[in-house]
Amino acid sequence: LTGAGTRVPVALDGHGTDAGAEPVVEGARIAAAEGIPVRVYGPPDLGLADGVGLVACERSISNEEDPVAAVRSSSEASIVRAAQAVADGDASAVVSAGSTGATMTAALFALRRLHGVHRPGLAAQIPMPGTRRRVLLLDVGANVEVRPQHLIQFAFLGSAFSEAVLGVKAPRVGLLSVGEEQKKGRPDVVEAHAELASSNRLRFVGNVEGRDILADHADVIVTDGFTGNVTLKTLEGTARAVGGGVRDAARSNPLAALGGLLLRPALGGLRRQLDPNQTGGAILLGLRGVAVVAHGSSSAEGIANAIRLADRAVRERAVERTGELLQASGADRSALRGRHT
Amino acid sequence: LTGAGTRVPVALDGHGTDAGAEPVVEGARIAAAEGIPVRVYGPPDLGLADGVGLVACERSISNEEDPVAAVRSSSEASIVRAAQAVADGDASAVVSAGSTGATMTAALFALRRLHGVHRPGLAAQIPMPGTRRRVLLLDVGANVEVRPQHLIQFAFLGSAFSEAVLGVKAPRVGLLSVGEEQKKGRPDVVEAHAELASSNRLRFVGNVEGRDILADHADVIVTDGFTGNVTLKTLEGTARAVGGGVRDAARSNPLAALGGLLLRPALGGLRRQLDPNQTGGAILLGLRGVAVVAHGSSSAEGIANAIRLADRAVRERAVERTGELLQASGADRSALRGRHT
Repeated sequence: LTGAGTRVPVALDGHGTDAGAEPVVEGARIAAAEGIPVRVYGPPDLGLADGVGLVACERSISNEEDPVAAVRSSSEASIVRAAQAVADGDASAVVSAGSTGATMTAALFALRRLHGVHRPGLAAQIPMPGTRRRVLLLDVGANVEVRPQHLIQFAFLGSAFSEAVLGVKAPRVGLLSVGEEQKKGRPDVVEAHAELASSNRLRFVGNVEGRDILADHADVIVTDGFTGNVTLKTLEGTARAVGGGVRDAARSNPLAALGGLLLRPALGGLRRQLDPNQTGGAILLGLRGVAVVAHGSSSAEGIANAIRLADRAVRERAVERTGELLQASGADRSALRGRHT
Repeated sequence: LTGAGTRVPVALDGHGTDAGAEPVVEGARIAAAEGIPVRVYGPPDLGLADGVGLVACERSISNEEDPVAAVRSSSEASIVRAAQAVADGDASAVVSAGSTGATMTAALFALRRLHGVHRPGLAAQIPMPGTRRRVLLLDVGANVEVRPQHLIQFAFLGSAFSEAVLGVKAPRVGLLSVGEEQKKGRPDVVEAHAELASSNRLRFVGNVEGRDILADHADVIVTDGFTGNVTLKTLEGTARAVGGGVRDAARSNPLAALGGLLLRPALGGLRRQLDPNQTGGAILLGLRGVAVVAHGSSSAEGIANAIRLADRAVRERAVERTGELLQASGADRSALRGRHT
């Protein structure tokens, strides 16, 4: 790698976050100050920090628009131009906190799939309380319906990314289902289970139930995008509700309030760990480029973490290494087709 | 209703709970002491309390057996005999902490479906921290695959049960999906959304996301049995992991330990609220009788609560009132068929 001065920048969608542009502006500043080159695709009047690039794009795609139609018809939209910049080699990765559907569609159209990949999968890192580890859950929303082959590919994509970028040696891969027994679950899950169990190119640990996602049974957990999205948001909502219950308890009487005050510093680590802004958003696996979907409610730190995740994936050559592992695994499209005929 | 002395008993499966027979024996004693007649179907040497009936059944159905094959071939199994007792009028309801699949199958075969019901749905009550309210989630595991008509029926079954037994006036009914917008989700969810939105017999509040399950947006949340099972167990696992994180924090240094000690009494309510034993397990809706599936890890209190839930459903005439509301709603099978042709 050459110095930061000559690296192509991360392309950041300047529209979006539910809280407006401020987290984007500040997140870009934080990342740039750390030496990650950033170029924002957004309104010209954002007031960006020195050193943060700008490509003026007035048009943005909202959550309410149909992603495919909007991306197809809006070549000037910020997320479309940001994704195209990656395809053209003018940016290293694309990051957006705007419409998840538009980000995934723009990335898919501009970056295209790795050889042999049916469907890209959106992967989120979930912190496991009480550990420094995170479990990678995919798909968390790119594909609301899947076939067994897609689940199998998600397993290999997730395993490759976990090893290449997250540094997990021989990641344990589990399949999200309604029971531990091999026959439990929907037919597509049962079929994927049988295929994964017969593979010697993956460390498959079997089915994982919802209650064991945070119990360190697996480093990578595979599911369809509907279940994965609901699960990810359920984890987030439950953590918030339980945290709120603890806060309420600490306000219920003076002794409890004193207890809460004394406990508060020790709880800081847990609070930080459970903050969705810490994980930097979800990364789209299976494409010929890096695309990161930041949380719609991202703070500046959340945006900065999404840029850091994108930058790390680029520096670790996530795309190339994931592609190599996928080919070597035999889980690319041609191999799977052969196995099913 | 006549006095407890002449009421037919709740039929309790004497096999099962992951911790063996002790919680069953003690749970039956607690419920009987409150005046709920209980009859255990299980091994003759359980050592039941005075006043708890026994029907000796050596055979039980394990989690490892195929539920349909086992129920079909084992008319002497405890869960089969307990469910049959309800059909024969010898018991008021059936309760089991054994194999969920076997309990649902035995109940479906013996009790049959209410007129017009395609598929029964398994409904669990989830406490909302910081409130005294619970949200009813269904299906949590009876049907791993559904069609839109099933989701629509779950909405009416859940609404009727919530109103009749849980005492919620005009329950708000939501559909679990990956976004609030009407078009978000799998095709079956989008189709069910359109049908429910056009009904004036139900208070439909639209899609609910995973992060809002505990946020009091709906009293009843409808989903397929795969997503519902994963979601329920994710809620449980996350609450446990966050609770563990708080405990770890309170052990991290002496000041935090003192804080934890002072806060502990105030946290008792939250801890009790989040304990899966408090909700008494899940109830199978859509049958001509009451069947309750207790948690496999039930304590004695968990078993007692499952018996209480079954008894309340019987006393509140849940089956009759749910059937009446379903017919009146036009969501019974014939009406839905008509609507789709």
